[in-house]
Amino acid sequence: MKQSVSINWLNNMAFETILNGHKIILDASEDNGGENLGPRPKALMLVALGGCTGMDVVSILKKMRVEYKSLEIVVEGDTTDEHPKKFLKMKVNYNFTGINLPLDKIQKAVDLSRERYCGVYASYKDSIDIDNVINIING
Amino acid sequence: MKQSVSINWLNNMAFETILNGHKIILDASEDNGGENLGPRPKALMLVALGGCTGMDVVSILKKMRVEYKSLEIVVEGDTTDEHPKKFLKMKVNYNFTGINLPLDKIQKAVDLSRERYCGVYASYKDSIDIDNVINIING
Repeated sequence: MKQSVSINWLNNMAFETILNGHKIILDASEDNGGENLGPRPKALMLVALGGCTGMDVVSILKKMRVEYKSLEIVVEGDTTDEHPKKFLKMKVNYNFTGINLPLDKIQKAVDLSRERYCGVYASYKDSIDIDNVINIING
Repeated sequence: MKQSVSINWLNNMAFETILNGHKIILDASEDNGGENLGPRPKALMLVALGGCTGMDVVSILKKMRVEYKSLEIVVEGDTTDEHPKKFLKMKVNYNFTGINLPLDKIQKAVDLSRERYCGVYASYKDSIDIDNVINIING
């Protein structure tokens, strides 16, 4: 399946794209010649993974009729120190809050995302070591 | 080098993150149970690559004192048809407009990004086949 994005240079280090009708500006930090008009591009790799698996998990848990109060997905990434600073490892933390949440069903939803549905995870996993952790706060 | 992003579930299929101080909402399309409050996460993989190499190239060309009118980076991606829909190929098109632009210097800037600087390219290249094309419009 093909898809395509167009990213246009604005000025200095800033670029702009329209994605599914939504404008995103990317920029470098002041330390790197930019003006922080938008986020750094490489961090979007972490957001892509967290958003992808997050949507899988909420969709699967909805079908399982599992209800929770909140879900935060924290994606940590570890890059080389030298250029090019590629990601070596990532860790996806699924932080749920809710009353008596069923860990077995949540684990099943996370496993299905990793093994069957998440295209970002599948795109990364051959070159990046990706762990995951489920944290449940009862409340 | 470590970095981390926190992505919070809003409702339905929508998530929100604050990245370098800038809010990004992600959502599924209406066809997939969302409300298109923001872009799809997987397309951010293409934006990450285009933004990363784009910033490298404008930064290197600035040092080379190469001036141009516009730069559009089109990143095309090709995924499997079956779940998980992982990227197999990408193609990065560097579309420049300017007067008598020096192809050799532009090629050098693109090569430096691919080989030395772009951490997103380096993170993807072991699992995704990535081509690139430079197009120059004289005007």
